[in-house]
Amino acid sequence: MNFDYTLYLVTDSTLCPREELPAVVEQAIVGGVTVVQLREKDCSSRVFYETARRVQEVTRRHSVPLLINDRLDIALAVDADGLHIGQSDLPAAVARRILGDGKLLGVSAGTVEEARQAVADGADYLGIGAIFPTDTKEDADAVGVEGLRQIRAAVDVPIVGIGGLKEHNLPLLQGAGMDGIAVVSAIVGQQDPRGAAQQLCRALEGVLRT
Amino acid sequence: MNFDYTLYLVTDSTLCPREELPAVVEQAIVGGVTVVQLREKDCSSRVFYETARRVQEVTRRHSVPLLINDRLDIALAVDADGLHIGQSDLPAAVARRILGDGKLLGVSAGTVEEARQAVADGADYLGIGAIFPTDTKEDADAVGVEGLRQIRAAVDVPIVGIGGLKEHNLPLLQGAGMDGIAVVSAIVGQQDPRGAAQQLCRALEGVLRT
Repeated sequence: MNFDYTLYLVTDSTLCPREELPAVVEQAIVGGVTVVQLREKDCSSRVFYETARRVQEVTRRHSVPLLINDRLDIALAVDADGLHIGQSDLPAAVARRILGDGKLLGVSAGTVEEARQAVADGADYLGIGAIFPTDTKEDADAVGVEGLRQIRAAVDVPIVGIGGLKEHNLPLLQGAGMDGIAVVSAIVGQQDPRGAAQQLCRALEGVLRT
Repeated sequence: MNFDYTLYLVTDSTLCPREELPAVVEQAIVGGVTVVQLREKDCSSRVFYETARRVQEVTRRHSVPLLINDRLDIALAVDADGLHIGQSDLPAAVARRILGDGKLLGVSAGTVEEARQAVADGADYLGIGAIFPTDTKEDADAVGVEGLRQIRAAVDVPIVGIGGLKEHNLPLLQGAGMDGIAVVSAIVGQQDPRGAAQQLCRALEGVLRT
């Protein structure tokens, strides 16, 4: 599988009601989003499953990969393109074993040690963050541009920066070796998700690893 | 697989701290519990996984099956003996497909219609309840003894009654066709889980289907 990580959308049902999510995701894809991660907390497995199916209807129509956050069972149930897990989720090696090699596995890492371990455990790409302080994840310690460079130097897999990334601070990340950026509120919290995605794409020119 | 549903323990970390769970489960097994369902809400996937591994160390040592509540991914990750799902969890047919035929699938049902659908979807047994009103599940409408009889008449698979079952009300269920009873607070909320299980076993004499 060849994934384009350029503009990676992570959903958040506290910023966008679930019933509006398919439409918002579609607008974001039209605006330039290249991969979608469905993240749901505080809902039943049934609601997660049904939301994933509705969002997948959109991502498939636009040939954009859909990844599921945390819940390997939901990823399997809807035959998603992959799974993204954090350090509080299933161990990456266990997730890799159950998921099989045909699906994408992403792992969140905030340090060089976590990044190396994730790759050893089978991660296809890393979500590195929070790059800058953010309101979405309260407990996230910022990695910063220097931390990002160190992780980039330590591992070979694609790296997606996440956390506090906005149009205005993307130029700070030029040359840091990211393969893409992941955003939550910069798209799903916006009145015009399509326009927001378009502006982020423009702001990304020259920032990512080529 | 031949399962003995006689005394089916469902855990609850609000009644028993997770670190004490393996010891409490062990005492309950020594007292007569024949199957254990690990139910965790409001914890990370990692904590659920690690708790399951610790409880499984006990259940395997005593050759008692361990089922996981709701989370098919945790069941797969620890290679549990099966999965128990409710009406707000993954659809039973989807769970059955991913779980495979070698594992036990239990489904909660509160009506004849839910019970028939669950069996059609591949349930190996049904958890029927709440039989009597209970504090553990706030939204549970009581099925009652008559409801239990109707479900018993409608399906062939083993039936485990759950919800509000205590030593003193078990005689009311004689002849209703249950294969076992599931309890939460009647064991995990007790100071002496082993003694509580023993007393429940005694009170079950003549109550279950033979």
